[in-house]
Amino acid sequence: MLNVRKNCEDILPLFRYDVNGQDPELIWHLTEITGFFNISEVAVAKELVLERLNKGAESGYDFVIAEHYGKLTGYSCYGKIPCTQSSYDLYWIAVHPDFQGKGLGRQVLNESERLIRESGGTRIYVETSQRLQYSGTRAFYEHCGYRLESVLEDFYAPGDAKATYCKAL
Amino acid sequence: MLNVRKNCEDILPLFRYDVNGQDPELIWHLTEITGFFNISEVAVAKELVLERLNKGAESGYDFVIAEHYGKLTGYSCYGKIPCTQSSYDLYWIAVHPDFQGKGLGRQVLNESERLIRESGGTRIYVETSQRLQYSGTRAFYEHCGYRLESVLEDFYAPGDAKATYCKAL
Repeated sequence: MLNVRKNCEDILPLFRYDVNGQDPELIWHLTEITGFFNISEVAVAKELVLERLNKGAESGYDFVIAEHYGKLTGYSCYGKIPCTQSSYDLYWIAVHPDFQGKGLGRQVLNESERLIRESGGTRIYVETSQRLQYSGTRAFYEHCGYRLESVLEDFYAPGDAKATYCKAL
Repeated sequence: MLNVRKNCEDILPLFRYDVNGQDPELIWHLTEITGFFNISEVAVAKELVLERLNKGAESGYDFVIAEHYGKLTGYSCYGKIPCTQSSYDLYWIAVHPDFQGKGLGRQVLNESERLIRESGGTRIYVETSQRLQYSGTRAFYEHCGYRLESVLEDFYAPGDAKATYCKAL
Protein backbone atom coordinates (compact mmCIF):
# COMPACT_ATOMS: atom_id res chain seq x y z
CA MET A 1 0.00 0.00 0.00
CA LEU A 2 1.31 3.43 -0.93
CA ASN A 3 2.19 5.62 1.98
CA VAL A 4 0.51 8.76 0.62
CA ARG A 5 0.22 11.95 2.57
CA LYS A 6 -3.37 12.52 3.44
CA ASN A 7 -4.56 15.75 1.89
CA CYS A 8 -7.70 17.81 2.08
CA GLU A 9 -9.59 15.66 -0.40
CA ASP A 10 -9.00 12.61 1.81
CA ILE A 11 -10.33 14.20 4.97
CA LEU A 12 -13.72 15.28 3.62
CA PRO A 13 -14.75 17.27 6.67
CA LEU A 14 -18.36 17.77 7.54
CA PHE A 15 -19.24 21.35 8.26
CA ARG A 16 -21.89 22.53 10.63
CA TYR A 17 -22.84 26.12 11.41
CA ASP A 18 -24.91 25.93 14.57
CA VAL A 19 -23.12 25.91 17.87
CA ASN A 20 -24.27 23.68 20.69
CA GLY A 21 -23.78 23.41 24.43
CA GLN A 22 -20.62 21.31 24.11
CA ASP A 23 -18.86 23.72 21.76
CA PRO A 24 -17.60 26.27 24.30
CA GLU A 25 -15.52 23.58 26.03
CA LEU A 26 -14.53 21.85 22.78
CA ILE A 27 -13.39 25.09 21.19
CA TRP A 28 -11.61 26.06 24.37
CA HIS A 29 -9.66 22.78 24.17
CA LEU A 30 -9.05 23.07 20.44
CA THR A 31 -7.60 26.58 20.62
CA GLU A 32 -5.59 25.66 23.70
CA ILE A 33 -4.05 22.52 22.19
CA THR A 34 -2.84 24.32 19.08
CA GLY A 35 -0.30 26.17 21.24
CA PHE A 36 -0.83 29.32 19.22
CA PHE A 37 -2.99 31.20 21.67
CA ASN A 38 -2.31 32.40 25.18
CA ILE A 39 -4.72 31.89 28.07
CA SER A 40 -6.59 35.16 27.55
CA GLU A 41 -6.98 34.49 23.83
CA VAL A 42 -8.34 31.02 24.52
CA ALA A 43 -10.77 32.57 26.99
CA VAL A 44 -11.97 35.05 24.34
CA ALA A 45 -12.41 32.25 21.79
CA LYS A 46 -14.69 30.45 24.24
CA GLU A 47 -16.52 33.65 25.15
CA LEU A 48 -17.51 34.26 21.53
CA VAL A 49 -19.06 30.79 21.37
CA LEU A 50 -21.03 31.58 24.54
CA GLU A 51 -22.14 34.89 23.04
CA ARG A 52 -23.45 33.04 20.00
CA LEU A 53 -25.23 30.50 22.21
CA ASN A 54 -26.84 33.22 24.31
CA LYS A 55 -27.76 35.77 21.65
CA GLY A 56 -27.98 33.76 18.44
CA ALA A 57 -27.29 35.51 15.12
CA GLU A 58 -27.68 38.88 16.86
CA SER A 59 -24.34 38.23 18.57
CA GLY A 60 -22.63 39.03 15.28
CA TYR A 61 -20.55 35.85 15.52
CA ASP A 62 -20.95 33.15 12.90
CA PHE A 63 -19.19 29.81 12.88
CA VAL A 64 -17.91 27.12 10.56
CA ILE A 65 -17.25 23.98 12.54
CA ALA A 66 -15.43 21.06 10.89
CA GLU A 67 -15.91 17.53 12.16
CA HIS A 68 -14.35 14.21 11.26
CA TYR A 69 -16.21 11.16 12.54
CA GLY A 70 -17.86 13.30 15.20
CA LYS A 71 -14.61 14.87 16.39
CA LEU A 72 -14.11 18.63 16.23
CA THR A 73 -11.14 19.12 13.93
CA GLY A 74 -11.22 22.83 13.17
CA TYR A 75 -13.36 25.91 13.18
CA SER A 76 -13.67 29.53 12.23
CA CYS A 77 -15.53 32.39 13.85
CA TYR A 78 -16.35 35.39 11.69
CA GLY A 79 -18.88 38.19 11.52
CA LYS A 80 -19.95 41.37 9.82
CA ILE A 81 -18.11 44.37 11.22
CA PRO A 82 -20.68 46.70 12.82
CA CYS A 83 -21.08 50.07 11.11
CA THR A 84 -19.60 48.87 7.83
CA GLN A 85 -21.51 48.27 4.61
CA SER A 86 -20.11 44.84 3.76
CA SER A 87 -16.83 44.22 5.61
CA TYR A 88 -16.29 41.09 7.67
CA ASP A 89 -13.81 40.12 10.34
CA LEU A 90 -12.40 36.62 10.57
CA TYR A 91 -12.02 36.54 14.34
CA TRP A 92 -10.69 33.02 14.80
CA ILE A 93 -9.54 30.09 12.76
CA ALA A 94 -7.93 27.03 14.29
CA VAL A 95 -7.20 23.45 13.30
CA HIS A 96 -6.48 20.54 15.62
CA PRO A 97 -2.75 19.60 15.51
CA ASP A 98 -3.63 16.09 14.25
CA PHE A 99 -5.25 17.68 11.19
CA GLN A 100 -2.78 20.45 10.47
CA GLY A 101 -0.79 20.43 7.22
CA LYS A 102 -3.56 18.58 5.40
CA GLY A 103 -5.43 21.48 3.88
CA LEU A 104 -8.18 21.59 6.49
CA GLY A 105 -7.42 25.19 7.48
CA ARG A 106 -7.82 26.21 3.87
CA GLN A 107 -11.09 24.30 3.59
CA VAL A 108 -12.49 26.00 6.69
CA LEU A 109 -11.34 29.36 5.34
CA ASN A 110 -12.84 28.69 1.89
CA GLU A 111 -16.15 27.71 3.46
CA SER A 112 -16.16 30.85 5.61
CA GLU A 113 -15.43 32.98 2.53
CA ARG A 114 -18.23 31.27 0.60
CA LEU A 115 -20.73 32.08 3.36
CA ILE A 116 -19.51 35.66 3.67
CA ARG A 117 -19.81 36.13 -0.08
CA GLU A 118 -23.34 34.68 0.00
CA SER A 119 -24.25 37.15 2.75
CA GLY A 120 -23.13 40.06 0.59
CA GLY A 121 -19.69 40.53 2.13
CA THR A 122 -17.09 42.21 -0.06
CA ARG A 123 -14.03 42.39 2.18
CA ILE A 124 -12.61 40.09 4.84
CA TYR A 125 -10.15 41.30 7.43
CA VAL A 126 -7.98 39.15 9.62
CA GLU A 127 -5.54 40.24 12.26
CA THR A 128 -2.51 38.45 13.56
CA SER A 129 0.73 39.07 15.37
CA GLN A 130 3.92 40.00 13.55
CA ARG A 131 5.91 37.79 15.92
CA LEU A 132 8.06 35.02 14.46
CA GLN A 133 5.79 32.39 15.99
CA TYR A 134 3.03 33.46 13.62
CA SER A 135 5.07 33.50 10.40
CA GLY A 136 3.31 30.29 9.34
CA THR A 137 -0.06 31.89 10.02
CA ARG A 138 0.86 34.92 7.93
CA ALA A 139 2.16 32.72 5.11
CA PHE A 140 -1.14 30.82 5.23
CA TYR A 141 -3.20 33.99 4.78
CA GLU A 142 -0.93 35.26 2.01
CA HIS A 143 -1.18 31.91 0.26
CA CYS A 144 -4.97 32.15 0.50
CA GLY A 145 -5.05 35.55 -1.22
CA TYR A 146 -4.93 37.90 1.77
CA ARG A 147 -2.87 41.05 1.43
CA LEU A 148 -1.09 42.82 4.26
CA GLU A 149 -2.87 46.17 4.63
CA SER A 150 -1.47 47.63 7.82
CA VAL A 151 0.93 47.07 10.68
CA LEU A 152 0.35 48.66 14.07
CA GLU A 153 3.62 48.60 16.02
CA ASP A 154 3.57 47.57 19.70
CA PHE A 155 -0.16 46.86 19.50
CA TYR A 156 -0.27 43.56 21.41
CA ALA A 157 2.73 44.43 23.58
CA PRO A 158 6.01 46.30 23.19
CA GLY A 159 7.72 44.71 20.19
CA ASP A 160 4.60 42.76 19.21
CA ALA A 161 2.88 44.41 16.26
CA LYS A 162 -0.56 43.70 14.83
CA ALA A 163 -0.71 42.83 11.15
CA THR A 164 -4.04 43.31 9.38
CA TYR A 165 -4.65 41.33 6.21
CA CYS A 166 -7.51 41.85 3.79
CA LYS A 167 -9.08 39.87 0.97
CA ALA A 168 -11.47 41.60 -1.40
CA LEU A 169 -14.11 39.11 -2.56
CA MET B 1 -18.77 93.39 30.15
CA LEU B 2 -16.34 91.77 27.73
CA ASN B 3 -17.88 89.39 25.24
CA VAL B 4 -15.37 86.59 25.72
CA ARG B 5 -15.72 83.22 24.05
CA LYS B 6 -16.53 80.63 26.65
CA ASN B 7 -13.75 78.12 26.84
CA CYS B 8 -13.17 74.88 28.65
CA GLU B 9 -12.20 76.56 31.91
CA ASP B 10 -15.55 78.35 31.98
CA ILE B 11 -17.64 75.22 31.56
CA LEU B 12 -16.17 73.24 34.46
CA PRO B 13 -17.90 69.97 33.63
CA LEU B 14 -18.59 67.42 36.28
CA PHE B 15 -17.47 63.96 35.33
CA ARG B 16 -19.04 60.76 36.43
CA TYR B 17 -17.96 57.23 35.53
CA ASP B 18 -20.87 55.02 36.47
CA VAL B 19 -23.66 54.57 33.97
CA ASN B 20 -27.27 54.53 35.08
CA GLY B 21 -30.61 53.42 33.67
CA GLN B 22 -31.23 56.74 31.89
CA ASP B 23 -27.89 56.77 30.07
CA PRO B 24 -28.74 54.41 27.18
CA GLU B 25 -31.47 56.81 26.01
CA LEU B 26 -29.49 59.95 26.83
CA ILE B 27 -26.42 58.73 24.96
CA TRP B 28 -28.59 57.58 22.07
CA HIS B 29 -29.97 61.13 21.82
CA LEU B 30 -26.58 62.75 22.27
CA THR B 31 -24.90 60.75 19.51
CA GLU B 32 -27.91 61.19 17.26
CA ILE B 33 -28.12 64.97 17.67
CA THR B 34 -24.45 65.48 16.79
CA GLY B 35 -25.26 64.48 13.20
CA PHE B 36 -21.95 62.65 12.95
CA PHE B 37 -23.24 59.12 13.31
CA ASN B 38 -25.62 57.11 11.20
CA ILE B 39 -28.48 55.10 12.64
CA SER B 40 -26.50 51.88 13.05
CA GLU B 41 -23.64 53.71 14.76
CA VAL B 42 -26.07 55.40 17.16
CA ALA B 43 -27.53 51.96 17.92
CA VAL B 44 -24.07 50.58 18.69
CA ALA B 45 -23.30 53.54 20.96
CA LYS B 46 -26.44 52.75 22.95
CA GLU B 47 -25.70 49.02 22.96
CA LEU B 48 -22.32 49.56 24.61
CA VAL B 49 -24.01 51.46 27.44
CA LEU B 50 -26.44 48.57 27.87
CA GLU B 51 -23.54 46.11 27.91
CA ARG B 52 -21.93 48.10 30.69
CA LEU B 53 -25.20 48.23 32.63
CA ASN B 54 -25.72 44.49 32.28
CA LYS B 55 -22.19 43.21 32.79
CA GLY B 56 -20.45 45.93 34.77
CA ALA B 57 -16.67 46.32 34.42
CA GLU B 58 -16.48 42.87 32.84
CA SER B 59 -18.11 44.33 29.74
CA GLY B 60 -14.78 45.94 28.90
CA TYR B 61 -16.48 49.30 28.33
CA ASP B 62 -15.62 52.22 30.56
CA PHE B 63 -17.18 55.66 30.44
CA VAL B 64 -16.48 59.29 31.12
CA ILE B 65 -19.74 61.21 31.27
CA ALA B 66 -19.68 65.01 31.38
CA GLU B 67 -22.58 66.92 32.90
CA HIS B 68 -23.37 70.60 33.17
CA TYR B 69 -26.10 71.46 35.67
CA GLY B 70 -27.38 67.90 35.44
CA LYS B 71 -27.49 67.86 31.64
CA LEU B 72 -25.43 65.31 29.68
CA THR B 73 -23.06 67.39 27.59
CA GLY B 74 -20.54 64.84 26.35
CA TYR B 75 -19.11 61.42 26.93
CA SER B 76 -16.49 58.92 25.97
CA CYS B 77 -16.52 55.14 25.93
CA TYR B 78 -13.21 53.33 26.03
CA GLY B 79 -11.77 50.02 27.11
CA LYS B 80 -8.77 47.77 27.20
CA ILE B 81 -8.36 45.82 23.98
CA PRO B 82 -8.70 42.11 24.75
CA CYS B 83 -5.54 40.06 24.20
CA THR B 84 -3.25 43.07 24.39
CA GLN B 85 -0.88 43.89 27.22
CA SER B 86 -1.80 47.54 27.67
CA SER B 87 -3.54 48.92 24.57
CA TYR B 88 -6.86 50.71 24.80
CA ASP B 89 -9.53 51.60 22.28
CA LEU B 90 -11.41 54.85 22.44
CA TYR B 91 -14.69 53.55 21.03
CA TRP B 92 -16.77 56.71 21.22
CA ILE B 93 -16.45 60.34 22.02
CA ALA B 94 -19.22 62.84 21.45
CA VAL B 95 -20.13 66.33 22.59
CA HIS B 96 -23.56 67.96 22.49
CA PRO B 97 -23.73 70.59 19.69
CA ASP B 98 -24.47 73.34 22.26
CA PHE B 99 -21.12 72.59 23.91
CA GLN B 100 -18.95 72.01 20.85
CA GLY B 101 -16.06 74.38 20.10
CA LYS B 102 -15.57 75.14 23.79
CA GLY B 103 -12.89 72.61 24.64
CA LEU B 104 -15.24 70.08 26.21
CA GLY B 105 -14.24 67.31 23.76
CA ARG B 106 -10.64 67.83 24.75
CA GLN B 107 -11.53 67.74 28.45
CA VAL B 108 -13.42 64.47 28.03
CA LEU B 109 -10.50 63.06 26.06
CA ASN B 110 -7.95 64.24 28.64
CA GLU B 111 -9.97 62.67 31.43
CA SER B 112 -10.22 59.38 29.52
CA GLU B 113 -6.47 59.41 28.92
CA ARG B 114 -5.82 60.09 32.59
CA LEU B 115 -7.92 57.09 33.63
CA ILE B 116 -6.33 54.85 30.98
CA ARG B 117 -2.86 55.89 32.15
CA GLU B 118 -3.84 55.19 35.77
CA SER B 119 -5.01 51.72 34.74
CA GLY B 120 -1.63 50.96 33.20
CA GLY B 121 -2.54 51.70 29.59
CA THR B 122 0.33 52.64 27.29
CA ARG B 123 -1.35 53.13 23.92
CA ILE B 124 -4.74 54.48 22.87
CA TYR B 125 -6.23 53.73 19.49
CA VAL B 126 -9.08 55.55 17.86
CA GLU B 127 -10.69 54.87 14.51
CA THR B 128 -12.57 57.22 12.27
CA SER B 129 -13.64 57.62 8.69
CA GLN B 130 -11.44 59.26 6.09
CA ARG B 131 -14.50 60.97 4.58
CA LEU B 132 -14.51 64.76 4.30
CA GLN B 133 -17.28 64.98 6.90
CA TYR B 134 -14.83 63.75 9.52
CA SER B 135 -11.93 66.08 8.71
CA GLY B 136 -12.73 68.07 11.86
CA THR B 137 -12.67 64.87 13.91
CA ARG B 138 -9.30 63.89 12.48
CA ALA B 139 -7.91 67.39 13.10
CA PHE B 140 -9.16 67.13 16.69
CA TYR B 141 -7.27 63.87 17.29
CA GLU B 142 -4.12 65.18 15.62
CA HIS B 143 -4.32 68.33 17.73
CA CYS B 144 -4.59 66.13 20.83
CA GLY B 145 -1.40 64.23 20.01
CA TYR B 146 -2.79 61.28 18.05
CA ARG B 147 -0.80 60.07 15.06
CA LEU B 148 -2.25 58.45 11.96
CA GLU B 149 -0.99 54.87 12.00
CA SER B 150 -2.93 53.13 9.26
CA VAL B 151 -5.55 53.59 6.58
CA LEU B 152 -7.72 50.70 5.42
CA GLU B 153 -9.25 51.59 2.06
CA ASP B 154 -12.95 50.82 1.45
CA PHE B 155 -13.32 49.57 5.02
CA TYR B 156 -16.63 51.22 5.93
CA ALA B 157 -17.91 51.18 2.35
CA PRO B 158 -16.48 51.57 -1.14
CA GLY B 159 -14.58 54.88 -1.08
CA ASP B 160 -14.90 55.18 2.69
CA ALA B 161 -11.60 54.29 4.36
CA LYS B 162 -10.90 53.70 8.03
CA ALA B 163 -8.17 55.79 9.62
CA THR B 164 -6.58 54.48 12.81
CA TYR B 165 -4.87 56.98 15.07
CA CYS B 166 -2.68 56.15 18.04
CA LYS B 167 -1.33 58.02 21.02
CA ALA B 168 1.47 56.49 23.08
CA LEU B 169 1.06 57.54 26.71
